[in-house]
Amino acid sequence: MGQDILYHLAMGTESHNLVEMFGDVKFVCMGGTPQRMENFAHYVMKEIDFNLPIGATLIDLSQYRYSMYKVGPVLSISHGMGISSIGILLHEIIKLMFHAKVKNPIFFRIGTSGGVGVKGGTVVISDTACDELLNNYYETPIVGNLVKRPAILDQSLVQELKALADPEDPYDVVTGGTMCANDFYEGQGRLDGAFCNYSEKDKMDYLKKLQNHGVKNIEMEVVPFAAMTHHAGIRAAVVCVTFLDRLKGDQVDISKEVMNEWQVRPQKLVAKYIKKLLKAL
Amino acid sequence: MGQDILYHLAMGTESHNLVEMFGDVKFVCMGGTPQRMENFAHYVMKEIDFNLPIGATLIDLSQYRYSMYKVGPVLSISHGMGISSIGILLHEIIKLMFHAKVKNPIFFRIGTSGGVGVKGGTVVISDTACDELLNNYYETPIVGNLVKRPAILDQSLVQELKALADPEDPYDVVTGGTMCANDFYEGQGRLDGAFCNYSEKDKMDYLKKLQNHGVKNIEMEVVPFAAMTHHAGIRAAVVCVTFLDRLKGDQVDISKEVMNEWQVRPQKLVAKYIKKLLKAL
Repeated sequence: MGQDILYHLAMGTESHNLVEMFGDVKFVCMGGTPQRMENFAHYVMKEIDFNLPIGATLIDLSQYRYSMYKVGPVLSISHGMGISSIGILLHEIIKLMFHAKVKNPIFFRIGTSGGVGVKGGTVVISDTACDELLNNYYETPIVGNLVKRPAILDQSLVQELKALADPEDPYDVVTGGTMCANDFYEGQGRLDGAFCNYSEKDKMDYLKKLQNHGVKNIEMEVVPFAAMTHHAGIRAAVVCVTFLDRLKGDQVDISKEVMNEWQVRPQKLVAKYIKKLLKAL
Repeated sequence: MGQDILYHLAMGTESHNLVEMFGDVKFVCMGGTPQRMENFAHYVMKEIDFNLPIGATLIDLSQYRYSMYKVGPVLSISHGMGISSIGILLHEIIKLMFHAKVKNPIFFRIGTSGGVGVKGGTVVISDTACDELLNNYYETPIVGNLVKRPAILDQSLVQELKALADPEDPYDVVTGGTMCANDFYEGQGRLDGAFCNYSEKDKMDYLKKLQNHGVKNIEMEVVPFAAMTHHAGIRAAVVCVTFLDRLKGDQVDISKEVMNEWQVRPQKLVAKYIKKLLKAL
């Protein structure tokens, strides 16, 4: 084909010089909200000593369906919520890396989640990914046929990240399984959605089944993230903080201040990794 | 339960007086991007002659995962992209309507889509909703069991909207089936995703199969929108503009100006309906 329009990024191969703009990228970091990813961009800028000229600041390079910030070798992009939203972004970011001739970028998802048997504020590095039915693959219809792609995460990256956890930090950093739900309420067994046709016992049985399966947290993107990066041969990791222990409740009732403090925890770990790798170059 | 925190809306029954804030709402309008829904709020404000005091403007009432604007009886809210993102919003908006004691609100999705055998710029009012496998239900795992909910749209609302189309408008307003995809690329048979393991013939066969089934456009939210509103007993409609005819291509290559002009078309129809109903009160 002629030009390639990355529609949801509001960029294209004819309208933008993608090699010049993105040729130096080594790390692609994604997370749900534009605000978190803008914060991460500023945080990583300090951590890797990346300096902007006096009077300059970062701008959102995309400003359409997603927000995108660039700090030298680091891209920081919002992915919205759920499988479809991160799936579109992955298609277009993988194409962007290809057009920009980037070799071997590492992808991170820096997320928030509900814990299963771990206390709020814990950081979970996902070592496996499963859906609500405990399948370790991403099943998606392609031209009318259901296709299964294994949702596999890079185990060496999991260990490298785990090794960087600071034992002095007043919270735990653990590895474990992550369950990816299509829905925040019924799909995660919450009792406080608009609908609920099951009992508290059904919920607890389900959560304990997940726990017995090795699931430490629940979010809404890990399966397509793991499957698509694995399919593309890209090293990738998911690091989330938990906002509550689902064995103890459903509502996210922590204050905005606590939430903001906890959200930084996965960012610290990923920034530390990036810093280490950049120093080794 | 005690208080109910509508987490993704950043509101709650204790922190906000939801009856006072939202008790007068009659129409809940949703669309993908914050920008479009801010524009719609300003557009509908003019159309229904809703006046703000001099020196005042609309603000985003939510400012977290979604953007929400209120213009008297009209809420205008962004839903992001895909099934999960609109699903979370629907749970929380249905709960919000309940807490605010709103009786019989009407929900609209004002969207963008790809056409199937209709030309770019056409407005499609969805009369049926199906997934990629042509199922007319929303299948979702609930505490580990797959549950099917019929995805049914209000047929009288479809006809009322269709009757408001202006024959003088330089574009068509049609009714037809809408297919809801989990993915923008492979799930819709596009050849320009990061991956593509099928041929142009497979794509065309699939699109023609959809067309023979009565599908006029493809988007990514209609199935949960139809299923959840139907399940809650809420009258609801989906009105989308098409950005291209998928039988003729995959890339969205219209200019920003054309896109902005086309995006207003479904807004015009929905605003006309709202205006008419408010006058009849």
